[in-house]
Amino acid sequence: MKLKAVVTATILAASTAFASNDSVWQALPEVAPAPADNPTTQEKIELGRMLYFDPRLSSTGTVSCFSCHNLAEGGDDHRPTSVGVHGQKGGRNAPTVWNAAFLSVQFWDGRAPTLEEQAKGPPVNPIEMGMSDLEAVVERVKRIPGYRPYFEAAFGKGDVITIDNIARAIAAYERTLITPDTPYDRYVKGDKSALTEQQIRGMNTFREVGCISCHQGPMFAGPQLPMGTGFFMKFPTVPDSPYVAKYRLTEDKGRFEVTGDPADEHMWRVPTLRNLVYTAPYMHNGAVKTLPEAVRVMASTQLGLTLTEDQVNDIVAFLEALSGPLPQQTVPQLPPTPGDLLDP
Amino acid sequence: MKLKAVVTATILAASTAFASNDSVWQALPEVAPAPADNPTTQEKIELGRMLYFDPRLSSTGTVSCFSCHNLAEGGDDHRPTSVGVHGQKGGRNAPTVWNAAFLSVQFWDGRAPTLEEQAKGPPVNPIEMGMSDLEAVVERVKRIPGYRPYFEAAFGKGDVITIDNIARAIAAYERTLITPDTPYDRYVKGDKSALTEQQIRGMNTFREVGCISCHQGPMFAGPQLPMGTGFFMKFPTVPDSPYVAKYRLTEDKGRFEVTGDPADEHMWRVPTLRNLVYTAPYMHNGAVKTLPEAVRVMASTQLGLTLTEDQVNDIVAFLEALSGPLPQQTVPQLPPTPGDLLDP
Repeated sequence: MKLKAVVTATILAASTAFASNDSVWQALPEVAPAPADNPTTQEKIELGRMLYFDPRLSSTGTVSCFSCHNLAEGGDDHRPTSVGVHGQKGGRNAPTVWNAAFLSVQFWDGRAPTLEEQAKGPPVNPIEMGMSDLEAVVERVKRIPGYRPYFEAAFGKGDVITIDNIARAIAAYERTLITPDTPYDRYVKGDKSALTEQQIRGMNTFREVGCISCHQGPMFAGPQLPMGTGFFMKFPTVPDSPYVAKYRLTEDKGRFEVTGDPADEHMWRVPTLRNLVYTAPYMHNGAVKTLPEAVRVMASTQLGLTLTEDQVNDIVAFLEALSGPLPQQTVPQLPPTPGDLLDP
Repeated sequence: MKLKAVVTATILAASTAFASNDSVWQALPEVAPAPADNPTTQEKIELGRMLYFDPRLSSTGTVSCFSCHNLAEGGDDHRPTSVGVHGQKGGRNAPTVWNAAFLSVQFWDGRAPTLEEQAKGPPVNPIEMGMSDLEAVVERVKRIPGYRPYFEAAFGKGDVITIDNIARAIAAYERTLITPDTPYDRYVKGDKSALTEQQIRGMNTFREVGCISCHQGPMFAGPQLPMGTGFFMKFPTVPDSPYVAKYRLTEDKGRFEVTGDPADEHMWRVPTLRNLVYTAPYMHNGAVKTLPEAVRVMASTQLGLTLTEDQVNDIVAFLEALSGPLPQQTVPQLPPTPGDLLDP
C-alpha cells in the first residue's frame, strides 16, 4: 500500500486565514481531474460503467461496486456499514462515490492515493467482493467474451484485459459521477437566489463556529492538495465529549490501522459534506442517524461547542444546499454470462 | 396461495395441429396486457421503477428486485440459484423479468396468477428479501417520507401506501420490461432478412422435432391462456434419460411443492425461451451451463430424442434470434433514507 505525504492540522492555520473573505466559498469544478496516465474518454466511461454495475466481479457474483455505492441512492447504501459476499458486514460506513473523483485520497483512512488504486481494493477484500486475488478478477473478466471489444475500444488491441485497465475504466466512469450544480454552487457562481435566508445564515454560522477549519474547499473536505496527498484530522479531538462513548467513536483507530504509526491513531480523512441529504447514517461507523445529530456531534467532538438548536438547524439547512441534483445514470447492458462462470 | 385452473398436456393435441402452417409463429405484442384493476400509467411506472431498484424493501437493506432480476443482465442473476439476505441461497434459478408481463402465471411453479401477486412473494421470503411480513414492507416504505408524493401521484390522496399499491406499481413497471424487437419478431412481421439461413433452418428443426409442442406462442411458453391460468408440463417426461441424474432434474418436485397434489409432481410452468442468450445457466435448478447442452437435455428428457450436433447448433442459432435488444433502463433516484431506517 503506497502512502503519500500527510498534511494535517499544520495546514489549518494558513487555510483558516482566508475564512474572513469570500474566496473561502468555492464551487465544484464542472469536470473532475484525471491523471496523466488515464485521460477520461467515452470508451473508458462506457466500459467502466459496465464494470461498476457488474456483480460478476465478486466471488459469489452478487456484489458489484453499485451494491454498496448505489447510484439510485447517495452513492452509498443507507446502512451503518456495508454487507459483502456471504452476508458479511464490513466495519465502516460506505463513503459516497458521488464526487469521490475530487478527493485527493480514497477510503476513510486515505489508504488509496487515486480512484484507480481504490478500485482494486473491494474486489479482493474478503468481506466485500471476496475474490481471491486481483489475478482472479482479471480471469473472471476474461471469461466473459463480450467484454473484449469494449476493452479494445478503450485501450487498443492486445493484452488489454488487465487489472490496471479494469481500474482505469472504473475510475474514468467515477469521474463522471459528480454533482456540481447544487444550490450552493449556483449561489457561489452568482445566483444569489439559489440559497434561502436560513441557508445563508447557516453558511455564516458554519464559518463562524469553525466547521470550515476542516471542511473547506469545493468538496468541504479540506484544502486542495495534490492527488495522493491526504488531508487528515483527529476524530474525536475532544475526548470527553459525551458523544464519544454514545456513538463508540474511538473503537476504530482509523488511519493507524493501516500505518501502525501511533501518530495516526484516530486520524481520519476529512470527509466531504456534499450530498449528506442522501447519505445517512453518518460517521465512519454509521452510528449517527440524523443530520442534526451529526452536526451536534461534530461541534462537540471537534470544536468543544454546544450549538443552539437554531444554529444546528441553520447549519443543516446549509448542508442541504450542498446536495444533489444527482445526474441520472443509465443501466449498462452487460455482456452475457457463460453458464459455467460461477460454481453453484 | 390462489391456484387457478391448470391446463396441461390435454391442450397439446389441439395446439400442435397448427404446427404445419405459419400461424404458429407469432410475434410478441408491442404492449404488455394489464389487468382491469391496474391500468398502466406513467406515474405507476415511475414509482414502480423506484420500488424495483430499492434494496430497502429487504430486511437487511441489501436485496432489491433488481438484485436477482438484474436489468443490466438477462433480467436474472447469472447464478444457478439466487442469493438473498444473509448470503442465503435459494433453491431455484431466478426466472427472467424480461417479458414476464406476458406470462399467464408467475414463478417456476406458477403459484402466482399475476405480476401483482408475484411481487408480494420475494419481500417476505425468509431466504430472499427476509421481511417479517407484508405489513413490515408497507411500514418500511412509509418510513421513507419521500415516497409519499410518488404514491399520491400514482394512486391519489389518502392511505395509498399499501401492499397492493406497492405491488401494482412494481407490476406496472415490469410491464414495460419487454423485448418485442428481436430478429425473430422482425422476421415474423415480414422482414425476411432478419434471420440467417441457419436460424431459419433451426426454426424449422425446432418445429419438426417437437420443441414447439410446449414452447409455442409469442412467448414460446405455451398457448395463450387467460391470465392466471398456467400452462404446465412434466419435466422430465423421459425418466431414463441420462441427463436426469447428471443434472439432478428430479430432486425438486416442482408444482407439487405448493399444491401437495401427486398429479403435480415434477410439473413445471413451461418457461419462455426469449432472451436465453442472457440467462445462462439453465433449468429450474440452474444446473445446465450452456445453451447447446440445454437443447440436448430438453430433446432427450422431453422428446426422447438425441439430436445431431448440426440440429443442436441450428436450434441454438434460432434461439439466439429470440434474444434482445434489451431496452435501456434509467436508474431511478430513490427518496433519501432516514438514518434510523435500519438497525446496525
